[in-house]
Formats: sequence, structure tokens, C-alpha cells
Amino acid sequence: MNVGIVGVTGYSGQTLFRLLAAHPAVDQVNLYGHVDEGNGPVRYLDEEVPMFFGHHLPLEPFDAATMMAANDAVFFATSAGVTSQLAGPFIEADFPVIDLSGDYRLQDPEAYAQWYHKTPASQLNAASYQLADLGAPQTHYVANPGCYATATLLGLAPLVQHNLVQPDSIIVDAKSGTSGAGKKLSPLTHFTEANDNLQVYKLNAHQHIPEIVQQLKQWDPAIESIQFNTTLLPITTGIMATIYAKGVPGLTEASVVDAFQVTYQDHPFIQLMPGQMPDIKMVIGTNNCALGISFNDVTNTIMVVSVIDNLVKGAAGQAVQNFNDLFQLTETAGLPTLPVLA
Amino acid sequence: MNVGIVGVTGYSGQTLFRLLAAHPAVDQVNLYGHVDEGNGPVRYLDEEVPMFFGHHLPLEPFDAATMMAANDAVFFATSAGVTSQLAGPFIEADFPVIDLSGDYRLQDPEAYAQWYHKTPASQLNAASYQLADLGAPQTHYVANPGCYATATLLGLAPLVQHNLVQPDSIIVDAKSGTSGAGKKLSPLTHFTEANDNLQVYKLNAHQHIPEIVQQLKQWDPAIESIQFNTTLLPITTGIMATIYAKGVPGLTEASVVDAFQVTYQDHPFIQLMPGQMPDIKMVIGTNNCALGISFNDVTNTIMVVSVIDNLVKGAAGQAVQNFNDLFQLTETAGLPTLPVLA
Amino acid sequence: MNVGIVGVTGYSGQTLFRLLAAHPAVDQVNLYGHVDEGNGPVRYLDEEVPMFFGHHLPLEPFDAATMMAANDAVFFATSAGVTSQLAGPFIEADFPVIDLSGDYRLQDPEAYAQWYHKTPASQLNAASYQLADLGAPQTHYVANPGCYATATLLGLAPLVQHNLVQPDSIIVDAKSGTSGAGKKLSPLTHFTEANDNLQVYKLNAHQHIPEIVQQLKQWDPAIESIQFNTTLLPITTGIMATIYAKGVPGLTEASVVDAFQVTYQDHPFIQLMPGQMPDIKMVIGTNNCALGISFNDVTNTIMVVSVIDNLVKGAAGQAVQNFNDLFQLTETAGLPTLPVLA
Amino acid sequence: MNVGIVGVTGYSGQTLFRLLAAHPAVDQVNLYGHVDEGNGPVRYLDEEVPMFFGHHLPLEPFDAATMMAANDAVFFATSAGVTSQLAGPFIEADFPVIDLSGDYRLQDPEAYAQWYHKTPASQLNAASYQLADLGAPQTHYVANPGCYATATLLGLAPLVQHNLVQPDSIIVDAKSGTSGAGKKLSPLTHFTEANDNLQVYKLNAHQHIPEIVQQLKQWDPAIESIQFNTTLLPITTGIMATIYAKGVPGLTEASVVDAFQVTYQDHPFIQLMPGQMPDIKMVIGTNNCALGISFNDVTNTIMVVSVIDNLVKGAAGQAVQNFNDLFQLTETAGLPTLPVLA
Repeated sequence: MNVGIVGVTGYSGQTLFRLLAAHPAVDQVNLYGHVDEGNGPVRYLDEEVPMFFGHHLPLEPFDAATMMAANDAVFFATSAGVTSQLAGPFIEADFPVIDLSGDYRLQDPEAYAQWYHKTPASQLNAASYQLADLGAPQTHYVANPGCYATATLLGLAPLVQHNLVQPDSIIVDAKSGTSGAGKKLSPLTHFTEANDNLQVYKLNAHQHIPEIVQQLKQWDPAIESIQFNTTLLPITTGIMATIYAKGVPGLTEASVVDAFQVTYQDHPFIQLMPGQMPDIKMVIGTNNCALGISFNDVTNTIMVVSVIDNLVKGAAGQAVQNFNDLFQLTETAGLPTLPVLA
Repeated sequence: MNVGIVGVTGYSGQTLFRLLAAHPAVDQVNLYGHVDEGNGPVRYLDEEVPMFFGHHLPLEPFDAATMMAANDAVFFATSAGVTSQLAGPFIEADFPVIDLSGDYRLQDPEAYAQWYHKTPASQLNAASYQLADLGAPQTHYVANPGCYATATLLGLAPLVQHNLVQPDSIIVDAKSGTSGAGKKLSPLTHFTEANDNLQVYKLNAHQHIPEIVQQLKQWDPAIESIQFNTTLLPITTGIMATIYAKGVPGLTEASVVDAFQVTYQDHPFIQLMPGQMPDIKMVIGTNNCALGISFNDVTNTIMVVSVIDNLVKGAAGQAVQNFNDLFQLTETAGLPTLPVLA
Repeated sequence: MNVGIVGVTGYSGQTLFRLLAAHPAVDQVNLYGHVDEGNGPVRYLDEEVPMFFGHHLPLEPFDAATMMAANDAVFFATSAGVTSQLAGPFIEADFPVIDLSGDYRLQDPEAYAQWYHKTPASQLNAASYQLADLGAPQTHYVANPGCYATATLLGLAPLVQHNLVQPDSIIVDAKSGTSGAGKKLSPLTHFTEANDNLQVYKLNAHQHIPEIVQQLKQWDPAIESIQFNTTLLPITTGIMATIYAKGVPGLTEASVVDAFQVTYQDHPFIQLMPGQMPDIKMVIGTNNCALGISFNDVTNTIMVVSVIDNLVKGAAGQAVQNFNDLFQLTETAGLPTLPVLA
Repeated sequence: MNVGIVGVTGYSGQTLFRLLAAHPAVDQVNLYGHVDEGNGPVRYLDEEVPMFFGHHLPLEPFDAATMMAANDAVFFATSAGVTSQLAGPFIEADFPVIDLSGDYRLQDPEAYAQWYHKTPASQLNAASYQLADLGAPQTHYVANPGCYATATLLGLAPLVQHNLVQPDSIIVDAKSGTSGAGKKLSPLTHFTEANDNLQVYKLNAHQHIPEIVQQLKQWDPAIESIQFNTTLLPITTGIMATIYAKGVPGLTEASVVDAFQVTYQDHPFIQLMPGQMPDIKMVIGTNNCALGISFNDVTNTIMVVSVIDNLVKGAAGQAVQNFNDLFQLTETAGLPTLPVLA
């Protein structure tokens, strides 16, 4: 198979390239520039991404027809607001797309406008939002979940689907490394400011909140909102979502653990740790999600700690997993499960 | 005035030495070894703490009578379980002691045994647990609060004292740098394990939980417990306690902010930030506590973010502040309020 | 005394403010904006530097006459190329200025143009370049040395002044934390790029090279150049300059150590460590320079390791030390010598 | 093929397991405990290495005969001093071994005793020291080079083999992340000490010095020693060796670059960067060595910057590369060349 990547110069795009270049079912990876970058000189991967020294591959001009002719699927690793400008022809052709941006995740265009402060895409119904560990895409246009949303929803799914928590009690204290904020320079991610520090940002306004609530509501319509806080860590990669919720009356730790085991048995990327807590390094470089599970009967509080590599499971890895599912390849093809000590 | 330090080689003790050596009311700082270290050769500060190169000061043998004769006050920067072995003669003589350990913080010896897994001290009634920003010590033996407890209680005091939160709803997601874990080597604080990582530890078992609950109960007897989680950050110094609680019916952001302003007006070390969130670097090197205050009316959740330097406000700085209060010195004497960019 | 700071929003300026605000001889610190910033609304310190929350001090308009009337001395913490636009009236009035920029360090305007790629200042002769640990300023306009130059020259002074090294053999492998690169955003200091990394930059082109060579030539005219390499560390603050040089025939370790002891006896900020090596944390927050000294007779190579806090000894602290010397205050006034564990 | 690992719990062993578990020519990876660990209960990989959660593989007892029967090759990831106790039967049987320890690298047992402070191995002649990028093993017992030695020798090989540098002028300023120091706890690698710091260690005494000199002498007998300094970085993984040497008379940058290109053409893991400088992140997770090459004609100094992942190219990856070469597999089999953004 041949696949294309749009937006390879970003951190998610770089990770996509690394995974797809070694994917056993992929013969060739084609790279494409953004449509809006004009007619400048051809850019090359190694010039744009010094880390890929020696990989002198051209970023070909964006042209939907050419791209569909040359590839079996295309990955969009472009920013929110950009993807929706590019995706139309692919949607109309019902061509397989894995979209890592936020543009097609929300079914409600007003919610998109409110949380993203951008113009919503049209044809939102053509896309399916798919957590890869909880099923296979139902459409050819896949809205790959956000990094925070992935960590949070995989930690909440067993609890909410089994109605184990009080619907108005969910609090998520989520922490992320800086790569999740992308390559764009900002004081928040200036080394001198970010190092040795912890910075709360986007107070009650992170754009992953609505996709989390949208999904939770599908599982339990009684859930209307969650308290969701985002903190920037002085690390490059990794997310830890620390999830708190009050248990329904009579809840026991055994029933909590049982819900997780039922939900995730035979799921190759989910690591369940009842009574233990994962750390971020356990999952770096992998497509895994490790879930620590505890119930404090003194406070009637469930605490689930969910950790992922934000660039793999939270972006490129889950995209490849969705790609595998879409083409009925082995779900784990091309996806590491052993962490890199880096 | 002359002051003595026991336990100067630990991180809190080092910080105490730095602060007291520059304190305007202190003429001399005397250092003492532990009573249980036998009759070995005299140790010197610069040999024990390479960072203090050139400060060739002896650690004199521990002898209570000599120490009381030579000093106006003594600071114990010794570990829990050690201090209670040393403090007896000072208590009996009603001699001024600022104790940075946990040995005299809990009034209930059974709670101490349960959370510290050590034998409780006797004469617990002789000590007063004193958050320096909320009053002056009532006894000559001061139990200086723990680092996590300080960050948490300063963030909760206005809410609990004004009965603004539902008593069973308090959740604290607390994060600390590694210096809080001391000099003792452990895999948790091995650089290769701790760097680029986030590690949850002492699950529902941190020994600062009971002193927090003890204090909260004094402010509001309806509070019986809190959910308190500790996470180790890949930074050296600093604590962020992210505090969540459900508001009582009809609560508004204005009433929350008002409670903080009433509680903390004219408190030189408290930095109130309504609608904003502090980061850890704002307080490093200082005796400040910065408090970010928010109320999310969608989820009816108050979020307070409390940051301190765990070695200063969370240990040595607060100890000096209690010392200042005990001797009716200027409260801010010898205590920095401008952060160090380090 | 009253002092003024121009450029307080940068990292060196912030550190200057912290030191001067606590300086025993300073009554008032006045802050000034740049002359080229136009007539916008007044800016305040706490708005420009969130770390200084609560310090709501105005940045007054830059006006030389007003500034000289209101202050006994002025510190320029402005960038190279900016200072020379501002300094003229102060030089003409022979008013005391401590200039932290590079604009008046080089006596040769052509060298300035070559290494700084900017237009050189006029009146270069009015300024004296002064390493504060090696003497007092000879003019009222003091060109405060650069951070790398300070660490390097303090490590080389005893060797070069005593003619112990072969003049063409000096190699300096210098490493710096990111605060030395300032607040300006760049990919080099983007956290995701800089963390867990080591980046060589300004290959054979760092602008501190000519001031080092200019000073070395004054000590030993046989020195024409040095190999000087700069590497960006994943730390916020601190410089380590690792200095290598071949010894003259017959050199012994004892004669090397002796040269350092002769040069630096009774220098309060210099920590000599014969046969040992300092680490960066030993000096953070202090105005010290710690010097590790070794001689390898197998390779006939002297290795000196020089560490400083780049914002204190390498900028603001040395500026205050020069200020103390200029006004014949106690040399150590307002300058910490005990490191902060941060 | 089946392969065995002894010492899988260390950082090099962990990395070996990760690489071999995904190696296309390896059917099964067997794990073995140390012979000296007695008859305790069986240990399991996931219990010993939490990062390998879910990989519940036994560490079988060490028994040479059984191990040779069950495997085609064995990797020793054991410490210096331990390997020589275990390797005898394998050497006698001429069984393929890749030894990551230092026990068989030095041909001179006295040098081993001097630098390692341990008893040298017998049968040193049975082993071949092999930099995998410079040839294939000549014996079945392969002494895999040390991490510092690999970075340094790959940077020096073209210069020394082509006689471009003055033999007594080589200075290496080498820096390493903490994983190179292993899992053993020590103050040097205690997070609170190592973070935000740079620590020079093993002054003129690092045990990789003699293997570097041994190899250089084989290339140019005029080289008798090098100045080699080791500095501990506040990062987990990666080495940068900054190599300085004086050029022979008449040297030009072109001739330097040419030597590198001749030496390394068609070497898949070597990334040559004339006039540019690599950073550590370019190679993390890969088996690459990136080499920045410069010549400063002002100082007649060549500077080569060599970066590797110390656990991959500096240990486990080079071991797999030597394994591939020994069994005439594709040299790149199982070895990543695209960096992981971690």
C-alpha cells in the first residue's frame, strides 16, 4: 500500500512518518505540503526537520486528485482550521482519510466555533470519531481523537459504560508534555519558562473538553459536563490524566476492577494495573495506554491514572491503529508495545 | 541572637542554614550532629554538603544542656522518628524549638503510628501546630507544618473557614519536586527513572494527609476526610497543589474571591490571583504562597491552585517565619519575597 | 542611594531588580522603559514579568536628564545594539553607568562590527571593561563582562598571567543554560527541542570570543586566538566552562595550584578547588565563581573547570559588584554567596 | 534463531530485549539470571522491570550448557567483573557471544586491573574488540565497545587513520546522560543532585580511556594518550563527544571532510554533517552516529562533534549490529534509523 502524509513537519507528522516508514503493509510514504503554501521552491523533509537528516524526500504540492491516485489512504497531520480547508475532495470521493486534527471531531458546529474559535467544517456527518481501542471506524473519513481525550476517555469508558460513577462528579487533572503544544513558539513553551515549572493553561477552556463530553454523553446521557484541568509538564512527551469520580452507592474496588477487565480483555494496547499506578515512562514510544485503578472507600472516590505517549497513542499511533482497523490489517501492525528508554 | 540547627545536612537543613546565616536578627548559627551518631571524628559542613564549599564549620556533638546554654532557639531539621528521640529535654525546659519534622504535628498518637509507621512521641500536648501565615505559635515548641500540608491548607483555609464547599467533596491533586523526598537514595528519585516522568506514589497513604484533615476539622467539623494524591515531578524544587471542591448551593466566583481577600489581606507572603493561575517558578526561592482562584459554574467546581517552594515556605522559610513570630520580630525578617530565576 | 534599571523585563534585568531591591545601600530602584518604545500606555513590572506578581511598579519613560537627576547610578540591561543608542548623554555627563550589554566591551569598532553584525558605538574609550574579581572600574562607564567571558577569563587569568600555558593551545568547551539566550523565542530554546538535548550553536562565531581574546592579549601578547565552543544545556541557569591548555615545559600541578592561590587569595567570591571539580549547582543564586583545577602529566594538559550562575556572576551580580567597587562600598554588599537549592 | 540475554534487568539489557524482541531473524528471546544469585524463587521480567508491565517472562537459571543448547547466540549485558566469571564455558566451546561489558575489551590484563580495579579475565585473546561500523567480528566472542569509546572512536577514525592530526593534541570533552551510569543508586545520579546540573566525574580516570587509546594506537602508533573528560548531563539518554585536535601542517577543511566521506561512504548508520553540528535528539532511539565536522583555520583546530544514543549505538544496538555481522544477516536488521521524539 501507498500512503500520504500532509503536515509531516509537525511533531505528530514526524511520528507518523517514523511509524509508517517501518509499517509492514506500507510500501511507500508520500509527503505533501499544504495547499496554501503557494508556489515556492520544493521543500525537503531533511531541511524542514533536522532530526530526519539524510532523508532527502520532497514535500510534493498538495493536489487532491493526484494524491488520491497515488495513495490508498491519506493522513492529515495538519492543524485545526487547516484540515477543513483541504478535506472536501477526499470526503466527496469517499476516500480513506485519517484526520489527526480537531476539525471533524465535534458533531455540533456551534460547539466547534465556541471551543476552537474558528469556522466549523461542513460535511461533519461524513466523519466518524473513533477511539481505536474501542472499535473500528464506521466511515472512510476517520476523526482521530485528541491526545487528552484519548487518555481521559480510555480511563473513563469502563466506569461510565457500567454506570459506576455519579454523573456530575468527574474531575480530570490532566498533565501533558510540551510536544502536545506543537512546534509553534510561545512563552509557555520557552525553555527558560517551562523548565523546572508547572503551568496551568487554557483554564476551563481546553478544546478537547467538548469531544470528551460528546463521547461520555453517548455512553451515559446523564453526564452533562466534567471538570477538566490542563497542566504543562517540564517533559517533552507523555500525558498523565488523573481521573477522580465519586462512586455510586455500594461500590467496591472489586466491581471497579471488574469493569475494566470486562471492557479491555484481549485489547493488545491496554495495560490494566489494579491497585498500582503507572508512570509516564512505561508507555513512551509505544501505542499503549496504561491504566492504574484505585478506589478509596474512605472518600468514596475512584482514582484512575491513565498514561499515554501523546504523539503515539495520542496522535500518530492511534491514527495507524485506526488505519489498520479501516483496512482490516492486524491491529498491532507497525505499532510498538515496548517502551523506549529515552 | 544565637540559633542552633540540628540536621543541617538535609535539604531543609541546608535551606535553614542559608536563611539564618543572612537573618538580620541572628548573630551566630551553630550546627549540631545527631545524638545517635556516636563518637566518630568531628564532621564539617563543607565536607557533608559540597554545595557549601568553603564553609568549614563543625557539626558539634548533640547535647541538650550545652545547646540551650549557647542558643536562644533551636531548629530541628531531623527526620520523623529521630526528632522525638531528641526533643524531650527542650520540651521539659520550655525552650524555644522550631521542629520541621512530623513528630509533633498530630495530636493523636494512634494516627501518628498509623500514618508514620513509627512510635509516637510523648508530650504531644506541649507542641502547637502552626501555619505561620495564619497566626503565631501558642507554645515554645512549634510543630512546623509539612510541605504538602502548607500548600493545601493555605489554599483551603478561606473556603473551609467560610463554609463555601461541600464537606465531602475536597480532592487535592498535589505535585512535588524531588527535594521533598530528601537525600535518601531510592529508585523513585534515581535520575534515569524520575526524569521525563511523572510518578504517583504513596497511594492514599501520604503522611501529610492526617495533619491536613486534623486542621480542616478544626475549621469545619463536618469535614471527615479528603481525597489526596501525590505525584513526583521531574523538577528539583516546588509544589503545586491543585485543589477541587464542589461549591455550596448558590455560590458565585465573587464570593469565593471575597473569602480569600478577607482571609489574606495584609498577609505579606500570600499572593492572590483571582481568575489567574500561578506557576511554580513564581515562588522559587521565596517564602510566598501564590493562590490561583477559579470557579467553574458549569460544573459547580472551585479550583484553587496553590504553589510554594517546598524547601522555603514548605519547610525552612516557614520555620523562620514561625521563629520571627515567636520572638515578635518583623514577620518578613530574613525571608525573600522575590523569586530566583534558577 | 537611588539607582535606575533600563531593561528590567529581560532575565538579567529581572535579576538586577531582585538584587538591588535587597541591597543595603540602595534606597530606591527606579525602572525605565526603552527610549524607542514610543508613547504607548505606561507599562508595569508585574504585567511585564508575571514572576514579579504584586510588584506594580511603573516603567517610567526613558529620559537621560530626568534619570540622572533621580539616580546615583544607572544599570543598562538592554541588548547589544540598543545600549549604544541610549548611553551617549550619560557618557558625556560622566555619569556612573554599569552596562551589561556588549556594546562597549570591545575597544576595536571593527571587531564589534564583525562579531555583533551591528554598528559599533562611538566613544568606546570612555568605557572600561572590568572583571569585578580582578579589580575596580577605572571609569564611570563600566562595560560589564559577558557571561561566557567571565567564566572563561576567571579560569584562565592565573594561568595566562603567570605564563604557565602554551599560547596557542587554549581550548574552551563552554556550556550554558538557556537563560543566557534571553527571552526572545527561537527554535533553539523551544522546550520540545532543547529538553533532553545538547545543541552546539554559533560555531566559531560566538560574540564573547573577541572580548576574551582582547583581555587575554593584555595579559599575554603572545595569545592570538582561542578555540571556543558553545553548547546549549537543558538547564535554565548556569555556565560551565571546561578549559584545556598545554602546560609550558616542566610544569607541575603544584605550580598550577600556586598560581591560582596567589591570584585569588582574599577574593570573597572565588572558590578554589585543587584536584576537585565543581558542579553548576554549587553556585546557583550566588555571585561566586568556583574553579576546579587539575593537571594531567600524562598528556601535559591543564584542565580548569569554571562554573558560575550566568545571571548573577555572569551578569547582574557582577554588575552590582562593579557598582560596589565604583562607589567604594563593601565588595560583597547585596551579593549572595550561599547557593539556592532550586 | 533463538538468542539469550544475561542481565536483562539493566538499562542495556532492557534495550537489548526491546530490539531483539522485534528483530526479524529472531524467533525467541530467552532470559537468564546471574549464576551468582543462588536458588531463590524464579524472578520475572515484569516484576524486575516495571516498564515491561505485562511481559511475564521468567529469568531462567544461568547454566552454560543449557543456554548453549537452547540458543544460537548469547548476549551478556552484565557488569564488568561479573561477565568474566560467566563467560569461560562459552569461550571454550567457541560459542557466539556478544559481550556488552568491559571485561574482554582490553588486551592487556594489567591495564584492565589498573582502570577497572578488578581482576582481569583470562583468555583475553579469544575475544575481538569490534566497532561494528568499522568491520565485522573476527572471533565468535565479541567484545562490544563502550558507549564513550564508540562515540569518540567513530569521530576520530577518519582523522587518525588518515594522519590528519598531531598525535599528542587530542582532547575529548565527552558528555553523557545518566542511563550510562546504570541502575545502581548513587548521589551522582540522585535526581535532586543531577537535575539542572553538570557534574564532572572520574577525573582522568574513566575506564573507557584505555580502550580508546588501545584502538587509536592500532590506527596510529604515534598516539600515546588522549585527554578525555567525562561530564554527567541532566538528561536520561545520549552522548555527545566533542573532539578537538590540532591539524597537521597545511590541513584544509576539504581534506578533513574528504577523509570522513572516504571512511564512511555506504555506512548506513553514520550521518556526516560537514560544517554543521548534530544535536543529541537527532539519534535518540536509533543505532546512528551523527558526526559534525569543522576546521577552524584561525586556531588550526579540528572540532568533531559525535552523538549517539548510549543505550543503542553505545550498547545494545551496536551489539545487535555485531550480531548481524557475525551471522552475516543484513547489517541494519532490527535496528532503527529514525529517531524517536521522546
